[in-house]
Amino acid sequence: MAQPTKTAPKNAPKKRPIPTKRSPVVNGEKGKPAYPGAEDDVKVTALKLAPGKLSPEMEAYFKKCDEKLGFIPNVLKAFAFDNGKLEAFVEYRQQLVQNAETLSKLEIEMIATAVSSQNRCFYCITAHGNGVRALGDPVLGEMMVQNYRAARLSKRQRAMLDFAVKLTIEPWKVEEEDRETLRRAGFTDRDIWDIASVAAFYNMTNRLASATDMRPNSVYHGQAR
Amino acid sequence: MAQPTKTAPKNAPKKRPIPTKRSPVVNGEKGKPAYPGAEDDVKVTALKLAPGKLSPEMEAYFKKCDEKLGFIPNVLKAFAFDNGKLEAFVEYRQQLVQNAETLSKLEIEMIATAVSSQNRCFYCITAHGNGVRALGDPVLGEMMVQNYRAARLSKRQRAMLDFAVKLTIEPWKVEEEDRETLRRAGFTDRDIWDIASVAAFYNMTNRLASATDMRPNSVYHGQAR
Amino acid sequence: MAQPTKTAPKNAPKKRPIPTKRSPVVNGEKGKPAYPGAEDDVKVTALKLAPGKLSPEMEAYFKKCDEKLGFIPNVLKAFAFDNGKLEAFVEYRQQLVQNAETLSKLEIEMIATAVSSQNRCFYCITAHGNGVRALGDPVLGEMMVQNYRAARLSKRQRAMLDFAVKLTIEPWKVEEEDRETLRRAGFTDRDIWDIASVAAFYNMTNRLASATDMRPNSVYHGQAR
Amino acid sequence: MAQPTKTAPKNAPKKRPIPTKRSPVVNGEKGKPAYPGAEDDVKVTALKLAPGKLSPEMEAYFKKCDEKLGFIPNVLKAFAFDNGKLEAFVEYRQQLVQNAETLSKLEIEMIATAVSSQNRCFYCITAHGNGVRALGDPVLGEMMVQNYRAARLSKRQRAMLDFAVKLTIEPWKVEEEDRETLRRAGFTDRDIWDIASVAAFYNMTNRLASATDMRPNSVYHGQAR
Amino acid sequence: MAQPTKTAPKNAPKKRPIPTKRSPVVNGEKGKPAYPGAEDDVKVTALKLAPGKLSPEMEAYFKKCDEKLGFIPNVLKAFAFDNGKLEAFVEYRQQLVQNAETLSKLEIEMIATAVSSQNRCFYCITAHGNGVRALGDPVLGEMMVQNYRAARLSKRQRAMLDFAVKLTIEPWKVEEEDRETLRRAGFTDRDIWDIASVAAFYNMTNRLASATDMRPNSVYHGQAR
Amino acid sequence: MAQPTKTAPKNAPKKRPIPTKRSPVVNGEKGKPAYPGAEDDVKVTALKLAPGKLSPEMEAYFKKCDEKLGFIPNVLKAFAFDNGKLEAFVEYRQQLVQNAETLSKLEIEMIATAVSSQNRCFYCITAHGNGVRALGDPVLGEMMVQNYRAARLSKRQRAMLDFAVKLTIEPWKVEEEDRETLRRAGFTDRDIWDIASVAAFYNMTNRLASATDMRPNSVYHGQAR
Repeated sequence: MAQPTKTAPKNAPKKRPIPTKRSPVVNGEKGKPAYPGAEDDVKVTALKLAPGKLSPEMEAYFKKCDEKLGFIPNVLKAFAFDNGKLEAFVEYRQQLVQNAETLSKLEIEMIATAVSSQNRCFYCITAHGNGVRALGDPVLGEMMVQNYRAARLSKRQRAMLDFAVKLTIEPWKVEEEDRETLRRAGFTDRDIWDIASVAAFYNMTNRLASATDMRPNSVYHGQAR
Repeated sequence: MAQPTKTAPKNAPKKRPIPTKRSPVVNGEKGKPAYPGAEDDVKVTALKLAPGKLSPEMEAYFKKCDEKLGFIPNVLKAFAFDNGKLEAFVEYRQQLVQNAETLSKLEIEMIATAVSSQNRCFYCITAHGNGVRALGDPVLGEMMVQNYRAARLSKRQRAMLDFAVKLTIEPWKVEEEDRETLRRAGFTDRDIWDIASVAAFYNMTNRLASATDMRPNSVYHGQAR
Repeated sequence: MAQPTKTAPKNAPKKRPIPTKRSPVVNGEKGKPAYPGAEDDVKVTALKLAPGKLSPEMEAYFKKCDEKLGFIPNVLKAFAFDNGKLEAFVEYRQQLVQNAETLSKLEIEMIATAVSSQNRCFYCITAHGNGVRALGDPVLGEMMVQNYRAARLSKRQRAMLDFAVKLTIEPWKVEEEDRETLRRAGFTDRDIWDIASVAAFYNMTNRLASATDMRPNSVYHGQAR
Repeated sequence: MAQPTKTAPKNAPKKRPIPTKRSPVVNGEKGKPAYPGAEDDVKVTALKLAPGKLSPEMEAYFKKCDEKLGFIPNVLKAFAFDNGKLEAFVEYRQQLVQNAETLSKLEIEMIATAVSSQNRCFYCITAHGNGVRALGDPVLGEMMVQNYRAARLSKRQRAMLDFAVKLTIEPWKVEEEDRETLRRAGFTDRDIWDIASVAAFYNMTNRLASATDMRPNSVYHGQAR
Repeated sequence: MAQPTKTAPKNAPKKRPIPTKRSPVVNGEKGKPAYPGAEDDVKVTALKLAPGKLSPEMEAYFKKCDEKLGFIPNVLKAFAFDNGKLEAFVEYRQQLVQNAETLSKLEIEMIATAVSSQNRCFYCITAHGNGVRALGDPVLGEMMVQNYRAARLSKRQRAMLDFAVKLTIEPWKVEEEDRETLRRAGFTDRDIWDIASVAAFYNMTNRLASATDMRPNSVYHGQAR
Repeated sequence: MAQPTKTAPKNAPKKRPIPTKRSPVVNGEKGKPAYPGAEDDVKVTALKLAPGKLSPEMEAYFKKCDEKLGFIPNVLKAFAFDNGKLEAFVEYRQQLVQNAETLSKLEIEMIATAVSSQNRCFYCITAHGNGVRALGDPVLGEMMVQNYRAARLSKRQRAMLDFAVKLTIEPWKVEEEDRETLRRAGFTDRDIWDIASVAAFYNMTNRLASATDMRPNSVYHGQAR
């Protein structure tokens, strides 16, 4: 007779110590990582780029991230080899993603995660899946990561994700009919810009992350579960 | 100046109460689910199939699952409308998946998750992603869910997953050269059977789950993180 | 002036002797196979797996196949290296494929063939194309093998195959709307399970066969033409 | 206990009477076709195009086909609405397909079938699958229809089909390296032209047939099995 | 502060001298081509095929081309190694492409370009993009090359291109519904044949050109801009 | 006998008047556009977004563009509804595209065009195809638009485009091996960042343009031919 599968033992020991910003100790006993994802906290990309000098503004921004999140997102560290690029990235994200007019923060994270899932980007799915979990709920986050069609969404949010995903996988087929579908779901032309802008932005970061093997801070994995 | 993104607040309140097998209470306040994924714990598929009578063996098996895992996996409940089908499923899984000769339990879960990720199956990614987290580690689990190529794997495990994924997405292109690659990575012919058998099995369950909108027990989402 | 193509000469000599279970003689004159497909009757897969001992039940089952069909299907021989796996396979197929409630045997074979055609599986297309020819008619069999859309099907059977094929090639896109289409074509929820179960099963066997280069009994090729 | 599958009964009654060119009787008893594929023998495409007047040369060619094959291939009837188009088609096929320098008639049919299989063209797979069966053997024909990779081919023929299939599904990726692979397999530049010419021709006829729902003469299905 | 991009300087010197049929001088100074595309005017394909003897008819046809166009299209030179093939090609194109009943010359070029764009064929996009520019307008030509969906087309022309492109990329999915869409857009059954015939023809030439690395006459690039 | 195709008449009248920044007159005689692409010069996207107020810096930038190029690129006008977004876009492009370390301006345009061709983006192919024509040569520009594999490139540039295109169509498959290929072609880690950054940027703009039906200035079409 078959045995119940043991893939999820009730009392599985917590295998991963909680990483903190102060302990990026990669090597634990026997040369193994001190905790799962420990290397990702210190080796951010596959590229060897000499660290650049941060501007006072960026120094302050990093400090603020650390205070608020408890860590500095690796994507910022990845750009930090060149302060000009870093500032442009932070500002572009602010203007073209975060300054959306009516999209909620959760909706922005949903688009980011669904888009990144299509592109199978380890960095972005991890970071933004966490965003959906924290701002929405843990199960919604998982559905955005795995298959957004599994989620029970409002007509508005479904239309928003259908557009973002079509724009991701076959942008050449997006036509007026697709914009009309968004309008019928209640979105304004400005919203259409914002949805497109957010989806387009993550199509960019997905590729930058995949091209450089950018690794997410390990702390994301355990948050808001 | 841009603000640090707030997608991962340091002290985000745990939004999801721990579900237990005794409290499948879907509705909380104001008609909302009592906790994220609560509906998934009571409405297992989109199909209305009258419950069947379980054999004493299956009754015992369900009881054993409950004792060991703390819950009965929804896939078993989904099959329970017909005891003959349920028994055949449990036995087939035992023989063709769990009775692999040299593949470890973790490796079986890795194949299951990587295959299910290709097919974007909410049920199977959730259940087996949990398996990888519990038997391996939480970050490995996430990489299997998102993009197995992100993981730093041994040559053996990489070859195993490359084969399983190719078999999933373009089985018609699998040829002797692919089997030779497995042999060169240390696998026997029996192992090749086992890898194929496991990958093929989850290609089946992925489709059964997607066809019926099978929902994973909500408890999986929070385990082994 | 062009000559009529000679690809289908009126009196082409029958090139393939009728294979029988008693004459798996591979080598004919000059080291060539005794008849087309002769090797496939003796070398069932590309894997070298020592034959296992069959249970009395399985011995009886093989004998029954031989009496009824005139041969033992190679898929059974392929599983015979392990009696436990063989029994589980035969039982699973019985319960999850053959025990469909209202699907006819022909319809099951149609699904099996259309699914296997998508996956370009030599073993399964051959065996189940034969099934469609025998239970339906020879031309229907060919259309299931080549392109099921060419067949003039009832609304019911077309919906059934559209669902099975979508489930095969992009299972992640199957949603309630697809189930509703089946219901509108007259299928019950139990039928939906059965269609999904059959399609899923052959998605599994297609991959097991492709992974192992499983070869169909040569006798199939000439039957029910 | 499971029963042996009955998909291929030993003594299945021959369900399809042998069609002849003199009996395109579509309707049998109860309005059903007289035999499988009977409609295909009289309604050649989905387009209503008034029959044109054939030139004496084409009249003679049709007569020759009928004497040699026992029927007039439906593709010729489909073009017959316009004698100019018909003559151009017959001549082009003669010059660009049949006048290949070293490719054998069998190899031409193999390319035609493998290409048509990629495009899932009912007419062309049927007609040329028959060609491979008649000129090669019945099992080789089936493998060309289902998945040419299943066939045990010489290095020459495998390279030939790999090139033809790549040219069919992603022509934009064919480069000097692909031509070099053909040269290394023993083909001359003229052979490369011929392989390309044959593959290209069937990519054309596949689309003409699919666009018009061109139906193959039913007699093909039973020949050379 | 960012500088305006300099990718399109207002007074960019004309870098490419106008090629003429009398000056196929490949080598300019320092072994570089005399002008962009100069090699393409003398080395027509990657295949070394000894030139054949042209019939008087073909000699006259080449002369006529030269007088009318100012050059002989390279595709004709590519076929010229075998006069029989050349004549068959010219005649087939005349009958199956140019003898369309109601399609305008522009519409034929639009289909040719949109199809060739799907297959990313350098020769055919260049030659027929030029055709659309000359017979329609320069911007329409560019849209056919890049993405026909960007063009503001009549319902008739959009339906025509949708059919041609579907026939190109997934011919197996073309069904009666697609033909009905054409009929609703005002096309007759004869027009459907013609659209299919033109689309199919360029699916053929695209592959012949890609297989042989056929190069377009450089003069096309600068015409009708 | 066939007639020479007339798709490229020697003396085709120039149909498109040269558009200037001072004459965005859309309507010519009979309500038709004054010249091909005339609407594109005045209706930049499909979205109705009220114009925003430009900062003095952006005013100056627009003026500079006009002086240098003779027009203001439509992408800038499209962003101009929000000065913050416009500035962020211009600065990001400057930092992440134009500030590449060793990539030449031509190489940046080549990546932009090859990437945009994969995404079939009318705006970006037009603008950057022009860039390649102006900085490289007209034929190179056409090859980047149509199929970059047709170009005879240095090992360096071919590796660069292979990476950029792979990153565009299947970013999830980019691994260390791909970076190694770039390094072997002579690129530094900083160059890898730059190539990735440029390719990623145009994957973003392609989607923003497709989502909003952004139209290129008509003047691009005729430049540097």
